[in-house]
This record gives sequence, C-alpha cells and structure tokens, in this order.
Amino acid sequence: MIKISFPDGAVREYPAGSSSMDIAKSISEGLARKILAASVNGQVWDASRPIYADSSLKLLTWDDTDGKSTFWHSSAHLMAEAVESMFPGVKFWVGPAVERGFYYDMDLGDRTISEDDLRKLESKMAELSKHNSPYIRKEIPKPEAVAYFAEKGDEYKLDLLSGLTDGEITFYTQGEFTDLCRGPHIPHTGLIKAIKLTSIAGAYWKGDEKNKQLTRVYGVTFPNQKELDEYLLLLEEAKKRDHRKLGKELGIFTFDDDIGPGLPLWMPNGTVIIEELERLAKETEQDAGYKRVVTPHIAKESLYLTSGHLPYYAESMYPPMELEGVKYYLKAMNCPHHHKIFDAEPKSYKDLPLRLAEYGTCYRYEQSGELFGLMRVRCLHMNDAHIYCSREQFAEEFRAVNDMYLKYFKIFGIDKYVMRLSLHDPAKLGQKYIDEPELWLETEEMVRQVLKESNIPYVEVPDEGAFYGPKIDVQIWSIIGREFTLATNQVDFAQGRRFKLSYTNKDNQPEVPLIIHRAPLGTHERFIGFLLEHYAGKFPLWLAPVQVKVLPISDKFVEYSRKVVAELKKADIRAELDDRNEKIGKKIRDTELMKVPYMFVIGEKEIAEESVSVRKQGKGDAGMVPLSEILLTLKAEKENRQ
Amino acid sequence: MIKISFPDGAVREYPAGSSSMDIAKSISEGLARKILAASVNGQVWDASRPIYADSSLKLLTWDDTDGKSTFWHSSAHLMAEAVESMFPGVKFWVGPAVERGFYYDMDLGDRTISEDDLRKLESKMAELSKHNSPYIRKEIPKPEAVAYFAEKGDEYKLDLLSGLTDGEITFYTQGEFTDLCRGPHIPHTGLIKAIKLTSIAGAYWKGDEKNKQLTRVYGVTFPNQKELDEYLLLLEEAKKRDHRKLGKELGIFTFDDDIGPGLPLWMPNGTVIIEELERLAKETEQDAGYKRVVTPHIAKESLYLTSGHLPYYAESMYPPMELEGVKYYLKAMNCPHHHKIFDAEPKSYKDLPLRLAEYGTCYRYEQSGELFGLMRVRCLHMNDAHIYCSREQFAEEFRAVNDMYLKYFKIFGIDKYVMRLSLHDPAKLGQKYIDEPELWLETEEMVRQVLKESNIPYVEVPDEGAFYGPKIDVQIWSIIGREFTLATNQVDFAQGRRFKLSYTNKDNQPEVPLIIHRAPLGTHERFIGFLLEHYAGKFPLWLAPVQVKVLPISDKFVEYSRKVVAELKKADIRAELDDRNEKIGKKIRDTELMKVPYMFVIGEKEIAEESVSVRKQGKGDAGMVPLSEILLTLKAEKENRQ
Repeated sequence: MIKISFPDGAVREYPAGSSSMDIAKSISEGLARKILAASVNGQVWDASRPIYADSSLKLLTWDDTDGKSTFWHSSAHLMAEAVESMFPGVKFWVGPAVERGFYYDMDLGDRTISEDDLRKLESKMAELSKHNSPYIRKEIPKPEAVAYFAEKGDEYKLDLLSGLTDGEITFYTQGEFTDLCRGPHIPHTGLIKAIKLTSIAGAYWKGDEKNKQLTRVYGVTFPNQKELDEYLLLLEEAKKRDHRKLGKELGIFTFDDDIGPGLPLWMPNGTVIIEELERLAKETEQDAGYKRVVTPHIAKESLYLTSGHLPYYAESMYPPMELEGVKYYLKAMNCPHHHKIFDAEPKSYKDLPLRLAEYGTCYRYEQSGELFGLMRVRCLHMNDAHIYCSREQFAEEFRAVNDMYLKYFKIFGIDKYVMRLSLHDPAKLGQKYIDEPELWLETEEMVRQVLKESNIPYVEVPDEGAFYGPKIDVQIWSIIGREFTLATNQVDFAQGRRFKLSYTNKDNQPEVPLIIHRAPLGTHERFIGFLLEHYAGKFPLWLAPVQVKVLPISDKFVEYSRKVVAELKKADIRAELDDRNEKIGKKIRDTELMKVPYMFVIGEKEIAEESVSVRKQGKGDAGMVPLSEILLTLKAEKENRQ
Repeated sequence: MIKISFPDGAVREYPAGSSSMDIAKSISEGLARKILAASVNGQVWDASRPIYADSSLKLLTWDDTDGKSTFWHSSAHLMAEAVESMFPGVKFWVGPAVERGFYYDMDLGDRTISEDDLRKLESKMAELSKHNSPYIRKEIPKPEAVAYFAEKGDEYKLDLLSGLTDGEITFYTQGEFTDLCRGPHIPHTGLIKAIKLTSIAGAYWKGDEKNKQLTRVYGVTFPNQKELDEYLLLLEEAKKRDHRKLGKELGIFTFDDDIGPGLPLWMPNGTVIIEELERLAKETEQDAGYKRVVTPHIAKESLYLTSGHLPYYAESMYPPMELEGVKYYLKAMNCPHHHKIFDAEPKSYKDLPLRLAEYGTCYRYEQSGELFGLMRVRCLHMNDAHIYCSREQFAEEFRAVNDMYLKYFKIFGIDKYVMRLSLHDPAKLGQKYIDEPELWLETEEMVRQVLKESNIPYVEVPDEGAFYGPKIDVQIWSIIGREFTLATNQVDFAQGRRFKLSYTNKDNQPEVPLIIHRAPLGTHERFIGFLLEHYAGKFPLWLAPVQVKVLPISDKFVEYSRKVVAELKKADIRAELDDRNEKIGKKIRDTELMKVPYMFVIGEKEIAEESVSVRKQGKGDAGMVPLSEILLTLKAEKENRQ
C-alpha cells in the first residue's frame, strides 16, 4: 500500500500502482468523469499513470489551469490526427497549449490550408472525439524512436529527438495518430466536446526567419458547447471593446513614429481620464495619511547598483546615458528614489509609518514584438507608493492597503478578482529568498490573516515570492470576463537594508523599516486600457472626457444653449456645444458615437420652461428636466463617482 | 562740426573733437555730474574721449548697466592703488567688474591680506577718492609698454601684453597708479563715494590649478552711502532668505549623490507647493480654454532632427540612449511632443485656437559648475503650453497670455516686473531670422500694441528675437529687490512649417498655424526657488505645506485638539497636531521656525467655549475665536489665495 496525501490534508492508503483515475473513482464516479490529469508531487501526470510511492496528489479538472492546459494540448493532438487524415504525409513540429487554446506547427509540403479546410477539420475532430480514443503513453528507447521517425522521413521529430536521451522519450497514441510527446494528456478524446479552429498563420521553424516557414493552426476547445459559445461571444465583444480601436475613436491616446514604439502620447480626452484617476488616488491617499513626493526620471548608475537592479534588471532598462564620466539611467521603478527621500532626514519611530506616494513615470524596455497598445508599453505612469513601517505596524498597514484595493474595485464595478499570494520556499532561504525565516513566516501569516479577515478571494502559491518578501498579484476580470493582472503588492525586508535605511526605535536603537510596495491602480497605461474594454468606452460620468453635450435643435436655440454650457462649466461639468448646422438626429447619433454620458436637447419648449430634454447614453430619451434640477443630479452623480 | 544723434532721435551739431562730457555739459551741468561714461556708436568710451566723426551717442549714468560696470571697473583700479600703497611691489593680474561689484587678482609675494587689511584698504580708498583724481587714458606703443612693465618686473602684465599688438595698447593712470587697461573709466575717483570690500579668495592664475595661486579681493562701491547701506541690508536679507537654506530647513527639496547633481528630489512639503501651483495653473488654464495632454519624457532622434534641436541644441541635451539601433533623447522641451499631438488628427479652422498644456518635465544639461540650488538645475517641471492659432486669432491669444501673467503677478504679490520684447533685425532676415519680413513686422506690432494697451512695462531690444519669431523675456523682482528671469513667451512662425502642421482654413485650403510658446509660471524649480526668497519661507495660507498647527497646552487637551485637527482636515485644511510633552512656549517657538501660518493654542477655556486661541505667523496672539468662525475665515483666505 502507498500513502496518498490530498490538498485538504487528508492522507489515505491505496494499493501500489493505483492511478489517479483509480483513486478518483474510489471517491466518486462523478468526480472521475471530470478528471483531466493529476498533479503528483507537484508534477502533472496522466490520470491513468500508475503511482508506486507515497505521494501528494491533486486531481485536476477543467477548473484548474493545469487541467485546461492538458485538455488543450490533447486537443492539439486530436487536431493533428484530423490534419493527417486530410493531408497524408504532413509533418508536425510542436503543438503546445497557449493561454486560451492551442496551436500546432506543421509542414504541409506544397499544399496550403484554407478557412474552408478549418471547418472540415472541426467536423473531423468532432467525429474522432466520438470514438472516445484513449491517449496511450508509451516509453520508447531512443534507437526505436529514431527508427520510427526516420522511416516516416520526419526531419522535425528527428530534430527534437536529437536533444533527448534514453529514458525521457515517450510516444502518445490516440486513435490512428502517434506523436513524440512528453505529455501529459487527458484520459480520452471523448472529453473534447466543443471545437473551434480560430486561425491560420505562418511561423518560421524554430522562430528563425532563415528557416522554412511552417503553417500554424490555432484552435480552442471546451468540455461543452455552452462554454465555447460564451467564449466566441466574448471574442466578438472584446473585438468591439478593443482598447486600441476605442482609444483612437475617442481621442484617448496615440502613437507616433518619431516619438517611438511603446511610448503613448495622451491626447486631451485621455488626459482628462488620467487627471480624474490621479484625483481619485490623491484624495484616497491623502485620507489614508500618505505624503506625496516628486522625483526625477533619471538617476546615476550607483543608485541601481545599490538597489540591485543593476546588473540583474539591466535588460529591462533603457541603456545608460554617459555624462561627465557617469552613467545615468531612466528609472524603471520609483522605489530607490523614495528610499532616498526617506533617508534625507533622520527618522524616529514617531515618523513611522511613513507613506510616500507618487504617480511616478517609469521606463522599461519591452521587446518591440511584445508591445501591445496600452497593455505592453515602455512608459508607465505608476500609482506608486512605499510604506515604511515597523514590524508592529505591518499588519495594520497591509490591511489598509487591501481595503484601498477593495474600495477601488467597488468604484470601478470590478466584481471578480483574486489575489495570488506568493510565498517563499524554506528550502531556498539564503538562495532564492532572503534568509530571514522568522520574518517570512511572520509576514506571510500576517498577510494570510488580513486576506482571510477581509474575505478577499485568494490563492496561495508556494515558491513564487519575491526575493525580498511575500507578494500579492492582483488579478481582475473585466465585465466581459477577460482577465487582467492589475498590480502587485509586495512586502520587502531587503531594500531597507541595502539602502541602509533606519529609524530610531523606542529603545533608542537603530532599526531597519519594513517596506510595502503598492500600486492599487497599477499604471495609467494598463488601467485605462482595461477601463476602455470594461466600459466599452462608455465611461461613467466622473471619468467621461466630455460629460454633457448640448444640442440645439436649430440655430435659433444656440444662444440659450451657450448659456446652458456656461452654467454646466460653472458647476465644474465638462460640457460642449454642438452648434453645427446639422439635423438634430445626426447630432444625437454623432454624440452617441463619442459615448458622451448625457445629451441636453434644446428647442423652444425647453427654453420656455428653463429646462433641457435629457438623453442618457444608451438609455435614450429621459424627458424634459428643469436645468437647475439636472445640474444637482449630475453634480451628485459625479461626486459619488457612480 | 560733427552730427551727434541721441537715443530720442534728436540730432545736434557739435565741434569736432568734443567729448561726451563736453556734450553733457552743454545740456546741463547737473547731467554732466552724473555722467560715468558714454556709448558712442554702440561702444563704451571714456566720457572725456574726443569724438571726431558723426556718431550716435548715449550718455551713461549709474542707471545704465554699462555705467555701473564702468564705475566698478574704475573702483577696481582705485582698490589697486590702495593695495599698492599698502603692499609695495604687489603685482596685478586682471580686475574686472562683475554682476555686483568688482574684483582684482593680485600676487602679494609671500605676504597675505587679512579682513583687517580690507578695512584699512577701504579707508585708504575713501581717502584717495577725495583727491578727485581723473582717470587718464594714454595710447602707448608696444615696445614702450613692454619696457615699462619689464622694468617693474611684472610678469603678469607682460603676459597680457604678449597677446596685444601696437595700436590696441592703452594705459590708464589715476593718482599714483598706472595700469595696462583697455578701459573705459569714469571721469574721476571722486565719484566713488561708498566702498565695501566684501571678501578675499584664492584664484589660480588663468584659472589653471597648475599655476600659481593669486589673491582675489572682491568689493562693491556706490555713488552714495545710502545705496551701499541698502545693498548690505539686501545681502543680509538675501542670506536669511537663501532658498537653499530655507529649502532644507522647511523640508522642501533635497539633493542626493546617487541621484545626481542638478536633479532635486521634492520632499513632501515641497510637493504640497508643487501641487498647489499646478492646481492654480490647471484652474487658470481650464478657464482659459486650454486642453491638457501628457507626453513621454523621451523621443527618437528623428523628432529633434525635425525640430532642429539636433544638432544645434545637442550640447544642452543629455546624451542619447541607443536602443534597437535608434537613438532616444530625454526631451529638453515639450514643443515637439505637442506638435505631434496637434498632428495626430486632421484639423480645421473650427479647431483653432488649440491650446495644449502640460506640466512637462524636461531635462537639460547644465555644466556641473553652473548648477545652483533650484535656480540652475538639470530637471525642469515646466508650466508649458502651446497655442496653435490663425493670424487673425494671434493678437487676442497673445493678449490673453499676457493677462494670465498679470493675474499670476497679482496672486504672488510681484509688484515689479518688466517684459523685454526682443525683435528681429531686417538686415539679418534669412540668416539669423526666418525670412518672413511681413510676419515679423505684423506680429512685432501686434505684440507691441498688446503690451501698450495692457500698460505692461516693457523695453524693446532689437536683434535679440528667436530664430522663429519675436520673444518676450519676463523679468520679475522679489520683495527684497533681487531680479529673476521668470519665463519667456514666444511667437513661432517656423516650427509649424518644419513639422508640416496644417489646418484647413475657411477657404478649404491648408494653412500653417502660428504657435505661441508660453510658460507664465516658468519651472517649479526656479519659481519655488523664487518664492522661497520672496516669502522668506513664510508662504501664504494656500501654499503653506502645513497650514495650521494645533498646540494643546497640556496632555489633558490632546483629545479635544485631535477633534480640532479632524475638523480642519474635513475642511480640506492641512493641519497637524503637536502632542509632544513640551511646554507651550517651546511648541510655539518650534512652529514659528517652521513658518506655519496659523497656530491654534488649546486649553481649558478654549474647550469650554468650543474655540481656539489663534496665533498668526509673525503677528502673534490674535485672541480666542470660535472654531466654526475661524474655519470659515481660513477657507475664504485659502480659496482667495491671499
């Protein structure tokens, strides 16, 4: 018998050689039907693979990231089987799972694959899936594997084999298709119930443009049709909400060849949003006792040698400028600058916690090919702050930061979020992690307690902490269900020491402060990109670049309309007049396109009654309202950030 | 007879060989007594030097910069005479006028000069001045000059002579002292009525530290004792108001070796001032119809090639960062970035004037030796904006910018200011100035008219315009009478064309906009430096980092004091509690030192009457005031920016 420990801490005994599937079945047939693979001692295995030693076991289903990957990788094999049946003699390179789905790179010889072919392949895959063919794993001695692919004349798999040694070579077979593959795979093809092949692209073999171009086919699959339908709807919706498209249409941001890739220019409408976000952050941080600072965008090399960014982070930084024999770098983060402000005057325990905030602009080098709209940029306006505190103050400070996240989530209608708490690995203290075993356990436990008490959904991830302390990655979902990594929230034992920061404690002794790095609103770039998708460009009143558009029905009403605009501006509302010589219908349509929250239509009746006819974005006509009344309504809506 | 033209345009005839002094006497004896030198055809001459040809003449008095320089250079000679009488055999190097006063470098052999000696020298100079000795100019053939100094064994003057040729060598003699000097000088020593030798320093010969160290004696002189007394008072006051000293004491800014020279870190108190200034600018600009933008701090080389900053301005820029084969520069000005935003979307005459504003941070390379506190820095937060307009709109836009300057001057209590209007020279069109003769005349006249109509004091300076249009340098005086150059305001015909900017005019034709560059509040760095001196750190309520300090008389009153602080914060007033266990007298003194505008002293009586005892900075006890009442007073004072 072997001992199997489960994630909930339970330990049970099973006959040696039991597979994860056997174990699942012993628990419930219902569960067994959902098993895609299993994590055995931290490694993902086929559910059918026998276990011969005491192990920790986590059964993986569609709800697990590793379960999904296995499912999609197995789908790539299923697609390959279909392709081989349609294009005999096709040769395959690699077919991994990706973030959403999978692809397979293939050499079709002089044949090409069309959109029509994709539809045929989908049908073929559906047919093959009905066979419920198991994915069968077989360990193969290297000479045998080489002989197999040599006979097929498959130079690609032979190339892969050349890098492998005996003992690590496995073949997987399902139905008529056999592939060199390290696995793992799902139990059988029948689990793949909904299939969509999404696109065809060219891809150079091994990513090298000197090599032959292969055909890459992308697809995505699901365990049921409903999820596929939802996914396709999401794709369509995401296309409409594409932040690059909306950003251009609404005058939010632009790029320019003479400025440089990844360096957005914020247009007037985008700048309004930036200023509103900064106002929110400043108000929130002021109430929470933060102090603001302003620091330069460059610093000497020596600063980054002290912080340790050089040489370890050099590849993500812009190259240095050499001046008077000194190298200056654009800052890639604000922390070292803030540490210097902490250090500029002597500190005592009475000065702590000290919370230094700055919407600091950092510059990071991302490869050209990885730049993507506002999501991957080289210039980052960061909602940054560093909290310097004592160990006793840490839990309360950390809780306050978490509360700030929750406050923001509420304001922006972010209902789905999760915090990934990344912990240290005690075996790697002094190597991957700073050697402070007690501080690690203490702060991890404090962070865990805060998360529990705040009822914040979180997952714990061992061995993914930062070098200098546990960290939290905050993941949020837009209203259409797309996932974004918003920000990180980090505890730091190390930088204080590196920068020789200290304060005089109550016993009159020098002590190194703990530091919390936090940026709840992330960067303007990523957050506004997220908001564009989240709101589909229809910003709530307080964020909308133009809040009210005043539309006179004809020229006769322009004068009164002007007065209305002036009244609105006096009430601090961003209002514009549409005095074009156009039909009111066109004015309304154009304003709808610019996604302005409110339109005031003005004609004879409105003037007579000192009123305006209100149209609310997406909700149509809301009837005539006295001007004084609607002003109060708007003011409240704006101030409440509804 | 020769024709002499005067600055007012008058032309009169005088006998050939008349001196400027002769001419002055012919006008009035009173005037003649004030003459220090004369500008003859643009060159500064001794007033006694005869004029033989038709000339333009400007008589120079103490009110002219060149008059002052001549006065101070002559004072250096007077000092040299005194030194020679006290230290026979002393050898002199050079003795120029400086911004305020003069110095002379001298070789005293193995003797040294003491502070006591300075007092003795002052007396000696006063005595010599009473002789009313004339400064006598004499042209000397080179061999004779060499023989004179060879005999004296004066290697310094021989060194100077080696660089001169016959015909340009003159000696000046007053009393017992003769010097090699190209002049000019004032009529006689009797004009120097008030004398102060200010300091002694070492100075390497020719500024080269491999050479011998000479003794440099600094002094300043005036035509009357009153001006000297005022100057000494100003020096003392300026020392107390030194922005570097106050900046440190009040926690405004700091420098750090690891960040780099000229790169201030703005501490929390300084950042409060920055944010208040930005709020003022944003409100003012919003009311004036500006739109805000945000642009990156770097751009590709190609942007600055288009703008023309490269290669002409390269020496004032940080060196490039080379990335993926492209050179990126830190921006030294915001204009090219704003032009790109103008250009990002097609424009019609309906979009003009377009006013793009940004508190943009620019980086400029200043030599290490020229850096000075916040006054000369390498990082500049600029109150920048660019106005794109048609020719018809120009005058109104320019007037509005001027009004904005005046509005700011009023807010900051800047009573003395002058605008230097720099014009083109028609002879240099197409070389030093863009070849648009009509636009030059038109805009110069428009600018002139605006200045006249606004009653703004201004002076016109020919041949000092920018390449691309007339410019205005704004000079202001702090309350203690020191002069600062605040900002420039420029008209630009050229950049629009270089960047191929255009808008569709009413005739549906493309047209290049005029551009106004303006920055009324200059840079945070220089302006806050100015304000520190101007207010002696005693900022008005709206700018003060801490606006109210609440001082409980003893521990018993801390709880109520805390409530008062909370009330103040609710009213958006920056308040702090002094809950230290100190005597109230010490608390008051410490708060005075931090120059907090208001103190609320709280004891038993105050609590009983829901009041506070108010002390106003520099004005002492203002009596007990109900809390609700003082809150309203403060709110009004803050909002009115008094």
